[in-house]
Amino acid sequence: MEDEKITTYLQENAAKFEEDLKALLRIPSVSTEEKHKPDMLACAQEVVRQLHEAGIPKAEIMPTPGHPIVYAESEQLPTRPTILVYGHYDVQPEDPVEEWISPPFEPTIRDGKIYARGTSDDKGQFIIHIKAAKTLNDLKMMPVNLKFCLEGEEECGSPNLDNWIRAHADLLKSDVLVISDTTMYGPGKPSLLCGLRGLTYIEVEVKGGDVDMHSGMFGGAVPNPINELCRIIAALHDEKGRVTVPGFYDKVRPLSKEEHEEWLKLDFSEDEYLKMVGSKELCGEEGYNCIERRWARPCLDANGIWGGFTGEGAKTVIPARAYAKISCRLVPDQDDKEIAELLEKEIKRLASPAVEVKVTFHHGGPPWMTSPDDPVLRAANVAAQKAWKATPLRVREGGSIPIVSTFTSVLNVPAVLLGVGLEDEQIHAPNEHLSLENFHAGIAASVYLMQEIAALPEMKK
Amino acid sequence: MEDEKITTYLQENAAKFEEDLKALLRIPSVSTEEKHKPDMLACAQEVVRQLHEAGIPKAEIMPTPGHPIVYAESEQLPTRPTILVYGHYDVQPEDPVEEWISPPFEPTIRDGKIYARGTSDDKGQFIIHIKAAKTLNDLKMMPVNLKFCLEGEEECGSPNLDNWIRAHADLLKSDVLVISDTTMYGPGKPSLLCGLRGLTYIEVEVKGGDVDMHSGMFGGAVPNPINELCRIIAALHDEKGRVTVPGFYDKVRPLSKEEHEEWLKLDFSEDEYLKMVGSKELCGEEGYNCIERRWARPCLDANGIWGGFTGEGAKTVIPARAYAKISCRLVPDQDDKEIAELLEKEIKRLASPAVEVKVTFHHGGPPWMTSPDDPVLRAANVAAQKAWKATPLRVREGGSIPIVSTFTSVLNVPAVLLGVGLEDEQIHAPNEHLSLENFHAGIAASVYLMQEIAALPEMKK
Repeated sequence: MEDEKITTYLQENAAKFEEDLKALLRIPSVSTEEKHKPDMLACAQEVVRQLHEAGIPKAEIMPTPGHPIVYAESEQLPTRPTILVYGHYDVQPEDPVEEWISPPFEPTIRDGKIYARGTSDDKGQFIIHIKAAKTLNDLKMMPVNLKFCLEGEEECGSPNLDNWIRAHADLLKSDVLVISDTTMYGPGKPSLLCGLRGLTYIEVEVKGGDVDMHSGMFGGAVPNPINELCRIIAALHDEKGRVTVPGFYDKVRPLSKEEHEEWLKLDFSEDEYLKMVGSKELCGEEGYNCIERRWARPCLDANGIWGGFTGEGAKTVIPARAYAKISCRLVPDQDDKEIAELLEKEIKRLASPAVEVKVTFHHGGPPWMTSPDDPVLRAANVAAQKAWKATPLRVREGGSIPIVSTFTSVLNVPAVLLGVGLEDEQIHAPNEHLSLENFHAGIAASVYLMQEIAALPEMKK
Repeated sequence: MEDEKITTYLQENAAKFEEDLKALLRIPSVSTEEKHKPDMLACAQEVVRQLHEAGIPKAEIMPTPGHPIVYAESEQLPTRPTILVYGHYDVQPEDPVEEWISPPFEPTIRDGKIYARGTSDDKGQFIIHIKAAKTLNDLKMMPVNLKFCLEGEEECGSPNLDNWIRAHADLLKSDVLVISDTTMYGPGKPSLLCGLRGLTYIEVEVKGGDVDMHSGMFGGAVPNPINELCRIIAALHDEKGRVTVPGFYDKVRPLSKEEHEEWLKLDFSEDEYLKMVGSKELCGEEGYNCIERRWARPCLDANGIWGGFTGEGAKTVIPARAYAKISCRLVPDQDDKEIAELLEKEIKRLASPAVEVKVTFHHGGPPWMTSPDDPVLRAANVAAQKAWKATPLRVREGGSIPIVSTFTSVLNVPAVLLGVGLEDEQIHAPNEHLSLENFHAGIAASVYLMQEIAALPEMKK
């Protein structure tokens, strides 16, 4: 009965929801470009308008040292659980604009997909929760308290969000964090993202002599910082593809039998993956398959290296210095700061006494993972199953969304990462789009998620 | 009696010889700069004038596709041995001109040193042989045939000399090659340069995937060309500082007991050398001292490396490609082409099957060494001893002078490398200078060398 009401409402309002999405998409809220500052404000105002219209009267534009945050909350009833929704209303620049089939800020529907900058990342995703709120409010069936934190600086690295969250921890107090800013495992495959890798990123400088030297006159007798840097980087892996830094794996949570088996069932093709990557073979840590290596195992990569003569032709120099940028992807329960320290210590231990090594810490962030038994995951599972009529996949991602860790650790809440994007939707590229099927299923899923969370015995107040 | 005549002549003509050197130094014969093309010709003409004046009527300017070569020869009497003198009349650019105490092309004497661009490299060096010829011709004591090959493109890498030598092998036919374009081991220490290292220089490209990848999404499962390049470069040395390339040392001529002992007598201070280099320690192949490592042992150095993100800050990329420039310094009897092939083979063997490796050969040149028993060395030894009144040192250098190998191999002659420069004379830098004491001793040494070579029983025709 209730479900039927919801289904009918969603059907009757589908066109309106698409129009509201288009209204957001028409505003070029490119956060990295100064000229779009008025558009950023206009976009925040449009978000506020839609929140108001969804029956959330307390919606406001809160300043930060950069672009403002839209914060909103419904009436907070003490008997209900509170869901905090995070999203971002800023978008990537549209360049190269000539490669767009339809203009980036004129939303256009083709083949069941809506094309415009920000469709998949993230306007078309966070809006589903506003429309779910409208649905439940209009139907007078809202079972939860809602809070929204929608920032305008995600595409420039969220420079102000961390501080803002810490400064507003009381305001943001909630029972569960919901984010839709990721992708589904594939079309028709709703996915619950249960883990993200963390990161630690360092820069290494190796100094040999005081100045560049002639390799003829000096070669063979003086330390060569490039050779030395290579020796250090090479020594950070063993022949089994494992990182040799002492203590590196100490806190790595072993992959559970359940996840291992569930991931084996994903129809992942190493051949297709290899084709996409374009290398001759895949590689990695012995004893793990390709998915496990990216989702559940830490790794170490040099991201940049430079030193000596890099122009055309030949110059016989032994440079004074060589440099590398090295990062580790981390998994629970590794600590990014601890790994950075272990790494620095090992690099310095490996270095020849003939050279000086300087290690600089760039940035990092902890890994994040939900417990597979977390009740909110159970709720999300039911919601996604109902919306997409398919068993949701429990997946992880190899990258990092640092803000997830900040939110969950500051607020001490579990998170549901319910992405409705698809991997090939060209985010950050021309012709970004979003499947309208997933857009509407997303709204339904958000409605059901609110209901399921409210129904959880663990959430009873 | 003869010696007295010579000494008197040299004393009486010392001022004139300095004036003639100044005449050469005033001409800004910078071969790398188009605007100095007329100066190049003027300088070649002045060299010709001085050759004529030295009693060598056949002196001419021979064209090349670049700057001309001054070629000269005395009357060639079949009973005499023939000495071929090589030198270069072009000079380095004078920049930064504001750092010169006296203008670079206004030769100025201060503290027994003559300052100007080209004093030590190489006008003040090759001219000693012209003045020696004048001395012996004026005194009617010339005991040898002379040929001069003075090029104008040494400072741009002698792009045309190799072909010219090969095309004029008959013209250049001689019994010994004499070059003054190097340095003495120290003030008051005349030196005979008996060996030069050769070179082989390659570039390595390691390709992983087809495009740059995100290290979060892909890290741990795909080949990282930087890590891989580092592993390859690191594997090219063992823990004893030896190059691991199979066959690398096969043709290395062992250091003779004589050279080992003679070099131990050089008052070489590793502490001072270390201070000059500025590194924390010296290093190199186990079992050899610092001089041996640079003069008598081959080595392998990365001269440049690049790949991935090298800007400020952090970017989590796994690049598609990484590159390095790698060179080996070679000693007799290593072959530069053979070593390049061995190196390429080993690099490809070391590479993981997940990456593609491309090796490009840049350039190379063979090592060169005189036999310590070569009669011309004996002659040079006596000549230098007489001129400097000190026992000449038999040294080598770690660098390469590719032209020495070309001359000696095309003409099949021994070479005497009698440098009158000093290491701190600022060649290629502001305030280049030459010790006038060494300039005059050099003229005397050249006179004696001509006499000693003529007197060698091995040179009797």
